[in-house]
Amino acid sequence: MDPACKMNLDFWFEFGSTYSYPAAMRVEALAAERGVTVSWRAFLLGPIFREQGWNDSPFNLYASKGRYMWRDLERICAAHRIPFRYPSAFPRNGLLAARVACRFAEAPWLPDFVRAVYRANFEEDLDISEPATITRCLASSGEDPDALLEEAQSAGSKDQLRIQTQQASRLGIFGAPSFLVGSELFWGSDRLEDALSWVVEHTPD
Amino acid sequence: MDPACKMNLDFWFEFGSTYSYPAAMRVEALAAERGVTVSWRAFLLGPIFREQGWNDSPFNLYASKGRYMWRDLERICAAHRIPFRYPSAFPRNGLLAARVACRFAEAPWLPDFVRAVYRANFEEDLDISEPATITRCLASSGEDPDALLEEAQSAGSKDQLRIQTQQASRLGIFGAPSFLVGSELFWGSDRLEDALSWVVEHTPD
Repeated sequence: MDPACKMNLDFWFEFGSTYSYPAAMRVEALAAERGVTVSWRAFLLGPIFREQGWNDSPFNLYASKGRYMWRDLERICAAHRIPFRYPSAFPRNGLLAARVACRFAEAPWLPDFVRAVYRANFEEDLDISEPATITRCLASSGEDPDALLEEAQSAGSKDQLRIQTQQASRLGIFGAPSFLVGSELFWGSDRLEDALSWVVEHTPD
Repeated sequence: MDPACKMNLDFWFEFGSTYSYPAAMRVEALAAERGVTVSWRAFLLGPIFREQGWNDSPFNLYASKGRYMWRDLERICAAHRIPFRYPSAFPRNGLLAARVACRFAEAPWLPDFVRAVYRANFEEDLDISEPATITRCLASSGEDPDALLEEAQSAGSKDQLRIQTQQASRLGIFGAPSFLVGSELFWGSDRLEDALSWVVEHTPD
């Protein structure tokens, strides 16, 4: 099969992002049902928000929008039976987790790691900026967490995430989660199914 | 039947709002299929955006978000077979149309009028701030358009829309379209089905 014809979804996510949580928990299984593979693309919203003139999450800057988001997230998680606890801090700094996810995007343990970090943030109310939390999330990787963390914080890995975040911006991504199918962008956890349908309908045989 | 038990959806819309267009075209038929009535609640986004520090549509202020919205709207309209033409001006001023819709919210011709205004804006690329356009949109009302326009621009009608917009803000509405079921808020055209399901599942018998 021509690799260009592979049914693939680029999943762009930020570990601090609330709506990325249900998307991250659901994307792999929903994609697999449709024979679609997932490319996990961690990035940072901070630099992208700063380009828009925001120095905080819009959910903190705009109170009505924030109140709506928390209630909406609660409804979405309930509908999909995803555990949810209001985090005692928002947004949490996902830099370290994103460096790991970017550096090891192709590792077989990566999807489990991503889900573990989201559960830490939005189910267990843990500080994901803490190396100890990330170490715990790497426990099931079968690798040495300390070695992974060291590699994720190398100059090369830092550059990799910086470049990937710039790429997100160039691709027109302005929020998370975002799904990209070729040049077709879908924004928001509630567009996951639409994005997957687009992959299935628009990937040439 | 206790009126409190009536299955009803409050549909909050702004005539200049792009995503309100597919919602306005679809809401009545989808609601009727489920035995739900629709309360049409016109309001103005301008004052609400100004409270958030914006003096223009966020789709104009934030370029990536704007580019995404136009493509997304095109996809949504195509999926629902709703004609769409890129308007030559955005956002158009929906003040006059909103005064009509607010003043005559209970009129039997109101849903047809609302849809006619949206088609004028997003299918026919007409200036909906022009009284001539609104007169045309009132043609099928069976009433005298001039008399309706005069009444819609009375001091009482102006106050009515002002109060309704303040009410939107108090209800936590920050964008359009929004759907309200009791105190449950749903934001965005893609949440129409969720909002209707909420009505059906949460209206007491």
